[in-house]
Amino acid sequence: MKRLSILGATGSIGFQTLDVIRKDKENFSLVAVSANKSYKKIIDIIKEFKPKYVVLMEKEAFNIVKDYCKINNLNVNILFGIEGLKIISTLPEVDIVVTSLVGMVGLVPTLEAIKNKKTIALANKETLVVGGEIVTREAKKNNVNIIPVDSEHSAIFQCLKGESKKEVDKIIITASGGPFRGKSKNELINVTKDQALSHPKWNMGKKISIDSATLMNKGLEVIEAHWLFNIDYNKIETIVHPESVIHSMVQYADGSVLAQLAVADMRLPIQYALNYPYRKKAVVNKLELSKIGNLTFEKPDLETFKPLKLAYDAGKQGGIMPTVLNAANEEAVKLFLEDEIKFLDIITILEKCMDEFSKLSLEVNLENILELDKKVRRYVKIIKYNYI
Amino acid sequence: MKRLSILGATGSIGFQTLDVIRKDKENFSLVAVSANKSYKKIIDIIKEFKPKYVVLMEKEAFNIVKDYCKINNLNVNILFGIEGLKIISTLPEVDIVVTSLVGMVGLVPTLEAIKNKKTIALANKETLVVGGEIVTREAKKNNVNIIPVDSEHSAIFQCLKGESKKEVDKIIITASGGPFRGKSKNELINVTKDQALSHPKWNMGKKISIDSATLMNKGLEVIEAHWLFNIDYNKIETIVHPESVIHSMVQYADGSVLAQLAVADMRLPIQYALNYPYRKKAVVNKLELSKIGNLTFEKPDLETFKPLKLAYDAGKQGGIMPTVLNAANEEAVKLFLEDEIKFLDIITILEKCMDEFSKLSLEVNLENILELDKKVRRYVKIIKYNYI
Repeated sequence: MKRLSILGATGSIGFQTLDVIRKDKENFSLVAVSANKSYKKIIDIIKEFKPKYVVLMEKEAFNIVKDYCKINNLNVNILFGIEGLKIISTLPEVDIVVTSLVGMVGLVPTLEAIKNKKTIALANKETLVVGGEIVTREAKKNNVNIIPVDSEHSAIFQCLKGESKKEVDKIIITASGGPFRGKSKNELINVTKDQALSHPKWNMGKKISIDSATLMNKGLEVIEAHWLFNIDYNKIETIVHPESVIHSMVQYADGSVLAQLAVADMRLPIQYALNYPYRKKAVVNKLELSKIGNLTFEKPDLETFKPLKLAYDAGKQGGIMPTVLNAANEEAVKLFLEDEIKFLDIITILEKCMDEFSKLSLEVNLENILELDKKVRRYVKIIKYNYI
Repeated sequence: MKRLSILGATGSIGFQTLDVIRKDKENFSLVAVSANKSYKKIIDIIKEFKPKYVVLMEKEAFNIVKDYCKINNLNVNILFGIEGLKIISTLPEVDIVVTSLVGMVGLVPTLEAIKNKKTIALANKETLVVGGEIVTREAKKNNVNIIPVDSEHSAIFQCLKGESKKEVDKIIITASGGPFRGKSKNELINVTKDQALSHPKWNMGKKISIDSATLMNKGLEVIEAHWLFNIDYNKIETIVHPESVIHSMVQYADGSVLAQLAVADMRLPIQYALNYPYRKKAVVNKLELSKIGNLTFEKPDLETFKPLKLAYDAGKQGGIMPTVLNAANEEAVKLFLEDEIKFLDIITILEKCMDEFSKLSLEVNLENILELDKKVRRYVKIIKYNYI
């Protein structure tokens, strides 16, 4: 029996994680969950899974859930905010912490979980993008396994199993290309939020859907892969593969390429991470290649989808630059989702931020990163007024 | 330094094996080689690689090479026939025996090599098709590694590395479909030898090229996979993939499919087998998926390319039936290559032989198999006179 804590249980990944454990209740128990403010979903989770701890990040939702449990005489510890997240990341009765929070907020609780030697099922890209150096150092020190939940990194993880790292020639991350694949920069000027949110292959949360439309998602994955697999940026390639059947590949020194293929269903990499090193009976449909018929591949258009190139640049510059990129992107996507800026303004914001903070030299530690993150977000607001 | 004996050094696989060791002379020495009658190639090999033992299967070629070595004062042991093959399969100074003989003749020396605890780099399909039961039993008893050289089996072998056999759902063997893919039975009535020999993707020997055109090659690979990976026939699938980029796949219980991809160059699986468990610097070109652009998949047409279906049938019936299938096929292909029969007559011969010998109940041992092999070959001649 593996005992889980899910940080971000009501988002897309959290929801699918619940479905995986729902189908294998003999092997998993849910000890703790968190949500921002989705109290209805949290109450459903309490009814079905009976967790001992629940964290809410918003006060009103926290109060509602607290009252609900009191009135119904339920013995659940209702906790609040980042302190609550820290608690459910470090509970002695938890084996695996699933970090499916969205954005920068995942970093601190993930670090706490690592220090308490929890296995990490990592679905929060920002943890490694922003805190890669710190997180991988702590994981090594505490002998903690970080098992990726992203379909791409899960694929790479699987293709590396049983192989020697020294013999890796390069990692090839596949990208669906998003809803705007093949479009020119001109065609992207007036695209709407709804168009950007209509991903052709994956059903995901809003933030990641926009990142997928700009290819920033792939860029964040490149930085994540750099830290997760301890591999140079010049050995990480991206290739556009619209069918999203091959989830990523590893090319070895001898010219062999190992690939992982599956239907596009996040429950598979989630299930893999939770059961690692074992593979359980499928919760997803089996792949039928003869029905799919056709797999295609093309080079990404780094001119039009510049965020991917900027991510490589930020990763290679290292230091604080991925933090700058990530904070700028989170704010830019938020502005786009609020109809405050246009699609291509996201690129302007990323470039201006990277330019502004490239002169800054800061030691990479948790305090500096959290501070810088706020500073960059403030700067995005200034860019908006000055340039957009 | 690994010391090699190559059975069948002048055929397609043997020739490419020589190229692999030519490019890594520091790590390989060639102790022994065999050939049927290609004395010119053997003399070239003697000049370049200086083997200590050479076997020829044909008397005149044997005499020529013997004289050549005498006149040139070369200290090479020139041996003759199957006894010579047995000797070079069991030499104490040999680590790996590469069995790249074509046909049934590979069985006995491979068994001798296994009994003498040599690692086997197996490129001779018939060894497992005909002698699977005996060979795998001996390999287990002697704790000998049989490492496949076939690109498909090498791919499967690589996809199984680091994984648990219990978690395998099925093996998916890819087939190029051969030169007649998409043709109807009617269109195959008058195809010529030259058409059948023009394989679109692989440059191979004549026997295997014809087998590739009938899909019998895939059938033999299915039986080979059954023994090599100890897996039921209903867990072995074949899929047509004309680009020959994915060399085969393994589907796991959770729905993940692992695949090995590479350019179509036999030197890669040869190199892999010789260096296993390590991967050396590539002797082949690297794969460029974005240049290839497109990978396609379709179900095999078992009606038109019936030999593949017959091979599944023979495998499932087990016992002596794969021996019957293989002997019938070797003779039928020979007759086709001699312009004695038409392309579709190959199927008639296979069916008539399987039918005739299905009543026969024989214990599977080496003696019975060798005896039966001859009997089936004689029966093919009778079929030719009676039915074709």
